[in-house]
Amino acid sequence: MSFIRRRFHKCADKLVEEYTVSTHFDWRLYRQDIAGSIAHARMLSKQKIIPQTDSEAIVEGLETILKEIEQGTLKPRTDLEDIHMNIEARLTELCGAAGEKLHTARSRNDQIALDMRLFVKDAASETVNSMKGLQRALLGMAENNLQVVIPGYTHLQPAQPILLAHHLLAYFEMLERDIDRFQDCLRRADVMPLGSGALAGVTYDIDREFLAKELGFGSVSQNSIDAVSDRDFILDYESAASVCMMHLSRLAEEFTIWSSQEFGFITIDDAYATGSSIMPQKKNPDVAELARGKTGRVYGGLTAMLVTMKALPLSYNRDLQEDKENLFDIVDTILSTVDVFSGMVKTSVINKGSIERALKRGHILATDLADYLVKKGETFRSAHGIVASLVSHVEEKGLSLDELGVDEYRVFSPLFEDDVLSINIESSLEARSATGGTAPSRVRKALARANKLLERQQH
Amino acid sequence: MSFIRRRFHKCADKLVEEYTVSTHFDWRLYRQDIAGSIAHARMLSKQKIIPQTDSEAIVEGLETILKEIEQGTLKPRTDLEDIHMNIEARLTELCGAAGEKLHTARSRNDQIALDMRLFVKDAASETVNSMKGLQRALLGMAENNLQVVIPGYTHLQPAQPILLAHHLLAYFEMLERDIDRFQDCLRRADVMPLGSGALAGVTYDIDREFLAKELGFGSVSQNSIDAVSDRDFILDYESAASVCMMHLSRLAEEFTIWSSQEFGFITIDDAYATGSSIMPQKKNPDVAELARGKTGRVYGGLTAMLVTMKALPLSYNRDLQEDKENLFDIVDTILSTVDVFSGMVKTSVINKGSIERALKRGHILATDLADYLVKKGETFRSAHGIVASLVSHVEEKGLSLDELGVDEYRVFSPLFEDDVLSINIESSLEARSATGGTAPSRVRKALARANKLLERQQH
Amino acid sequence: MSFIRRRFHKCADKLVEEYTVSTHFDWRLYRQDIAGSIAHARMLSKQKIIPQTDSEAIVEGLETILKEIEQGTLKPRTDLEDIHMNIEARLTELCGAAGEKLHTARSRNDQIALDMRLFVKDAASETVNSMKGLQRALLGMAENNLQVVIPGYTHLQPAQPILLAHHLLAYFEMLERDIDRFQDCLRRADVMPLGSGALAGVTYDIDREFLAKELGFGSVSQNSIDAVSDRDFILDYESAASVCMMHLSRLAEEFTIWSSQEFGFITIDDAYATGSSIMPQKKNPDVAELARGKTGRVYGGLTAMLVTMKALPLSYNRDLQEDKENLFDIVDTILSTVDVFSGMVKTSVINKGSIERALKRGHILATDLADYLVKKGETFRSAHGIVASLVSHVEEKGLSLDELGVDEYRVFSPLFEDDVLSINIESSLEARSATGGTAPSRVRKALARANKLLERQQH
Amino acid sequence: MSFIRRRFHKCADKLVEEYTVSTHFDWRLYRQDIAGSIAHARMLSKQKIIPQTDSEAIVEGLETILKEIEQGTLKPRTDLEDIHMNIEARLTELCGAAGEKLHTARSRNDQIALDMRLFVKDAASETVNSMKGLQRALLGMAENNLQVVIPGYTHLQPAQPILLAHHLLAYFEMLERDIDRFQDCLRRADVMPLGSGALAGVTYDIDREFLAKELGFGSVSQNSIDAVSDRDFILDYESAASVCMMHLSRLAEEFTIWSSQEFGFITIDDAYATGSSIMPQKKNPDVAELARGKTGRVYGGLTAMLVTMKALPLSYNRDLQEDKENLFDIVDTILSTVDVFSGMVKTSVINKGSIERALKRGHILATDLADYLVKKGETFRSAHGIVASLVSHVEEKGLSLDELGVDEYRVFSPLFEDDVLSINIESSLEARSATGGTAPSRVRKALARANKLLERQQH
Repeated sequence: MSFIRRRFHKCADKLVEEYTVSTHFDWRLYRQDIAGSIAHARMLSKQKIIPQTDSEAIVEGLETILKEIEQGTLKPRTDLEDIHMNIEARLTELCGAAGEKLHTARSRNDQIALDMRLFVKDAASETVNSMKGLQRALLGMAENNLQVVIPGYTHLQPAQPILLAHHLLAYFEMLERDIDRFQDCLRRADVMPLGSGALAGVTYDIDREFLAKELGFGSVSQNSIDAVSDRDFILDYESAASVCMMHLSRLAEEFTIWSSQEFGFITIDDAYATGSSIMPQKKNPDVAELARGKTGRVYGGLTAMLVTMKALPLSYNRDLQEDKENLFDIVDTILSTVDVFSGMVKTSVINKGSIERALKRGHILATDLADYLVKKGETFRSAHGIVASLVSHVEEKGLSLDELGVDEYRVFSPLFEDDVLSINIESSLEARSATGGTAPSRVRKALARANKLLERQQH
Repeated sequence: MSFIRRRFHKCADKLVEEYTVSTHFDWRLYRQDIAGSIAHARMLSKQKIIPQTDSEAIVEGLETILKEIEQGTLKPRTDLEDIHMNIEARLTELCGAAGEKLHTARSRNDQIALDMRLFVKDAASETVNSMKGLQRALLGMAENNLQVVIPGYTHLQPAQPILLAHHLLAYFEMLERDIDRFQDCLRRADVMPLGSGALAGVTYDIDREFLAKELGFGSVSQNSIDAVSDRDFILDYESAASVCMMHLSRLAEEFTIWSSQEFGFITIDDAYATGSSIMPQKKNPDVAELARGKTGRVYGGLTAMLVTMKALPLSYNRDLQEDKENLFDIVDTILSTVDVFSGMVKTSVINKGSIERALKRGHILATDLADYLVKKGETFRSAHGIVASLVSHVEEKGLSLDELGVDEYRVFSPLFEDDVLSINIESSLEARSATGGTAPSRVRKALARANKLLERQQH
Repeated sequence: MSFIRRRFHKCADKLVEEYTVSTHFDWRLYRQDIAGSIAHARMLSKQKIIPQTDSEAIVEGLETILKEIEQGTLKPRTDLEDIHMNIEARLTELCGAAGEKLHTARSRNDQIALDMRLFVKDAASETVNSMKGLQRALLGMAENNLQVVIPGYTHLQPAQPILLAHHLLAYFEMLERDIDRFQDCLRRADVMPLGSGALAGVTYDIDREFLAKELGFGSVSQNSIDAVSDRDFILDYESAASVCMMHLSRLAEEFTIWSSQEFGFITIDDAYATGSSIMPQKKNPDVAELARGKTGRVYGGLTAMLVTMKALPLSYNRDLQEDKENLFDIVDTILSTVDVFSGMVKTSVINKGSIERALKRGHILATDLADYLVKKGETFRSAHGIVASLVSHVEEKGLSLDELGVDEYRVFSPLFEDDVLSINIESSLEARSATGGTAPSRVRKALARANKLLERQQH
Repeated sequence: MSFIRRRFHKCADKLVEEYTVSTHFDWRLYRQDIAGSIAHARMLSKQKIIPQTDSEAIVEGLETILKEIEQGTLKPRTDLEDIHMNIEARLTELCGAAGEKLHTARSRNDQIALDMRLFVKDAASETVNSMKGLQRALLGMAENNLQVVIPGYTHLQPAQPILLAHHLLAYFEMLERDIDRFQDCLRRADVMPLGSGALAGVTYDIDREFLAKELGFGSVSQNSIDAVSDRDFILDYESAASVCMMHLSRLAEEFTIWSSQEFGFITIDDAYATGSSIMPQKKNPDVAELARGKTGRVYGGLTAMLVTMKALPLSYNRDLQEDKENLFDIVDTILSTVDVFSGMVKTSVINKGSIERALKRGHILATDLADYLVKKGETFRSAHGIVASLVSHVEEKGLSLDELGVDEYRVFSPLFEDDVLSINIESSLEARSATGGTAPSRVRKALARANKLLERQQH
């Protein structure tokens, strides 16, 4: 019977043990847990709460355990309910009574809060790095295809011509905001909770600032009850991840549509495509699809955590154990998706022929025609109407706008003059030169800015 | 390079392989997958699509594989992307060219649809059985405490006295509806999809009714495109599971509150409670809390699956691979929660003393007083007002209603007579004797009905 | 001060009144509420709980109120907290003390449970009718385009040829399951809760079976505590609605993609398309997009209700008031989406030219080639590999498979003979003739079955 | 027929009009929309895109419209599809052709992005202010009850004594993080999108920095495609709101439990409580319950928006119209909940008697006893075990720890000495004096810090 149960008359029921054990998943926190315990032991001796020799024995024992875990010689025991009990048990094997002192001035409630904060800080930081990799891949594709013009879509209908690079930079912007969110998350997770005890603080003369410094935290938590009950930093990561995954699902959707035979804008590299067990000709954009599908998984994880936290009275409740598998899964999903997307983007090939054919469809210069009339003196509303009638006219004839002569234009408005024929894709792009616009000169500036952002130090 | 990729010029990128592999989780479907393949092989030979000898070799091979897996000698190879490829590869090792014929007239698209339907049918059936166990435990607690009256609450404020058994039967009703939902799920999952091929059906003269019969299905799917794209049966299970988990979260909340020191209505058995690593006196209702927390997990899983399915064009898309881990986790969560709750309910002890003290609080017979006045001729609205004034009066005096004499009652209404003093908990209960009410006679009938429902055959 | 507050020393704070009032949304339940009150009044007099004359006065008053509301002369008063208080107040104005007796043997807890069940029954029934309309529209499109063959897709890549009618019938199947779910919902909602009182039943000699009969319910609730706490029937509707909306989002996605310039498979009727305020040429599939977007709204509503119900102790809690706006919004969304889709489907035009061009892409008969080899004696795995090599070969040459001669085929396998050249779209379709397959003969049977299902009586 | 539809041959179908119209909800954006249009008109004339006189006429017209709306004389016309069309139509009535020029160099795509950003900035700022009000109320309750000690709970079981003020400060911390999140949201929303046109930028020589300055934005958007497709700023608000609502649901749960008869820790003021239509004695914490219930609504809204955005190809799609009702509802829910909670907290009364009785239960000083032994030389694990045995012993005897004499203590460990009897609630509190602990001296410092934070300027 676990020493924790010494006031009970029975062991936990077998089903209860299986139901409540967390060792099989919180084992993943071994680095964080050991780092926290080492700092705690050092603090205890520094404050003379335990003797220096005990502290040294503990630290040595913990370092041994770290090695044993990394070498695979120490395995999780699920008869011990969590990683903390596992490590404490092994420590006591290794260094006897000194090991029994490690839990002085500490509860698992503040210990797990510490472990999870350390984990989230690591995860957020790693996520930012991965995302920069994807940003780089997008910039690479943009720079390698600087001349490529594609139809810009609204409602999946051709709207106005844009540079492919401009389109890709839209994703750069999304990822930039994602990075900002993960950094906010990192900042808010950077608060050291140890010393909160079970919920009220501890009765020993501890040094929390020392612990914070040892463990690389920017500050210490200000309220012990909050510190053991708070999982906001996990929700911060999961919210940021959900928005990020939403962005990636949009890119995934576009890669799926663009690599369809009907669009044919890109060819996904063979190394990023899969085949069929029955249809020998198939080449499928599975990576993009699977990422799109995994959006559900990440949203579901966020939902799960929000639901779990709903209406819990203070302070710690066992419900909080549900914070882990969820988060681990989301972190893994984000990192693997971002990384595999980097590769997919880098290796995809742009098909200029299909794109050029697409540009011919959908009267994509109609807005430019309306703007032309405005510049000749028409009000925009009236100009819009005139061009709409023109479009209706050519549709009925089965023509495209560039097949009309000036005389035909003039049937719709006397303001049309010869220069109307010089409206073309290039002029359309060039004219959109304000900040954020698709003019080639502007997009080159945007690329330069993006490269500069990528070079900045991560805070 | 997998034979599926023979039209490609490259292997899949390492990251892509890791990202798309499902072997580590779909391995769980081995029984369903093998059962499906055995039936398929038999059908192929019966229809003379493959020779009888090949079919026999395949069936024998598959039976060997089943044993190997159950004995742990055949392990999943993650270099093969899923369980289907794993089993096919091993089969070909075991029986050569015959094995290469198994995938005739079949696609992984209809194969996985089959496996998942078989799995859901098993899971729904097992869930129903587990839930009956919990119903039995609730009935047991009700029958063992038939005399116990507790305060009925609305808004967590004492409302009217009720039998504990009546309260527990409310949960019986919830579970009864849950069972009904899981059985609807089972019914809708009971449709055999094999023969749908990749999406369009197959070009062989297959016998789908034979397959359905071999595999225990009630009917065959009517549209091949739908059959490979449909995951409604998974959503059915997950919706039912979400509502079920909601019910269990309510029971969990009540056990948590009732086992608080302040309520003290029940004592959870030591075998169903856990202790603290720091606070030696603690006895915590962790099972109830963890179940309440896991409600998030199940809701999150449903959300995930709904999101994954959103806006997918027909027919099969790789997004669908995300249907599995989700479902497996929900099934495991429901089954383990229901089972551990059965034990918790069975072993919890009712504390009559605390309950009796609680019954004295909150003027719990006020409605009966108002009904008394109505029966003497007052309108209900007026009676309600008179008793509200009475309550206000005794609250100010720090008394309870049963401390008043008839004269004091008559200050508030001349309709009060001596018999007002005979209103008590027993009379209050007895009076609520219509179907569904808390009168002891009625509750005994409800218990009898519940026992009868439990005895019925599972359909 | 509301008569309900007679034991309080104060009115509710203004903010509290605004926060808790539900009149502005539960007003929508006036028909259900009045119907329930009429039945209740009749039962009270039948059981001699109130005099016949009072009952008649109440019924007459309620009928007047119904007319006043429908004519718009009686408006909701938000100083009265909900619809029940509004109607009771007006009733008391109209018929004095008789009105004050209506609430005898009833609580708002069982009253609102009744209203909501009546509402859900109506909604489910109306939903089923609307969905049959959409099924009819799909069948209409299928029957009007019986000869049209389209590329069947998996992973949005061409897979195998299918009949358009077969594709549309996949949606028929989905809607058929939706209807089944809404009918399950209707069945489970068909339980009469009145007589449960606040939570424990009532102290009067009521006749619940009479109430059930008057109000058209199949049975009465079996546990009063459950009856006032249960909102499963709302979750049933919302779960069914979520799956239904998921199906519609898939159809929406396909209409969006199919009406793109690049696919061009369908033209959405002008009456179902919208324009742009700036781009004169635009014709956008807004109905499909908006429906796809509203999927979020319905999923969100289900999530909301599940979250609201989580971990509520029994019995009624004010949290339950949140069940209404949610449900109303989902019902409105489903009905309007289904109806507008019926129109969109009916009026869309199939573009055979674009579809024929698409059929030429993607080596769509590759599976048929592999099956051909199998029938000549090759194992399927080997046949799959041979055709994959063939595809790889023609891709390199920039050819399509039907441009090869027999000799070229025979380079890849000696089993190819002259008859390989007779593999074509028609033969591919015809061969898939098992139940659920896309063979024209089979699809005609499926259409006949679908029409028959549509004619069946709604239960 | 709307002028936008001039290229169509038909009006929109009636159902389509009803389905797609947004006027009834986006009307709420009138202030933002008019402010944006005024700035746009000024920019157009400054840049000589339209004449100064036209700009002045437009601005005057828009100011008239603003007054008309605020006075209720201009009503939304639902035959015009949205607020933009409504205002433009009225403007053209008021100032003729000048009005037709307003939409020059602008699309509804960038216009609505602007309106929504202005709205979110206002909402976030107002939310922060409301939340400070609630923080003030919590500090007020803490300061007015500085001497009150309550049982601190983990798992809803008594754990260690804490100051009530310390408990309330935990909520202060949560709200402080919420404020931080809303300010991050505000910062990220502070980017001016106008000038992005439909998606590609506009062909006029616009001045976006001027627009940003006029409208109070910190910067302009850097990519036009992103600017019209991005709704991250809405998700930011909704994520922050979800976490905030989770915190409020915890407070709500505690108020509900604390105001139960069994706990009796607080009495909610009559002005914040409601009664029952049937049970005259009832006083219910409806505000807390309803807030807890509305957590579902807010989570559901976040889910809805995430789902709506999933897998949308760039750039604008009509799905995005679903961003509004959702957000408006969440903003209203948060603001009303926070405000009504401020009042509820301010007026609730602490019941010292009930709290003192509760403190006697649950061996709340057991941890202090274990720490006592540690300070006498025992290891913590051993000390924990000794005290667990002590607790087991007194439980069996039906005693509490403070009823034991030193001799009895010494049966369990010889380290116990006379001073063990001086362990009491006060000594327990005092000992937890590190940062974040519950020692009275420390809590006074925490209150001072909190007051200082509240005084700081909102950035």
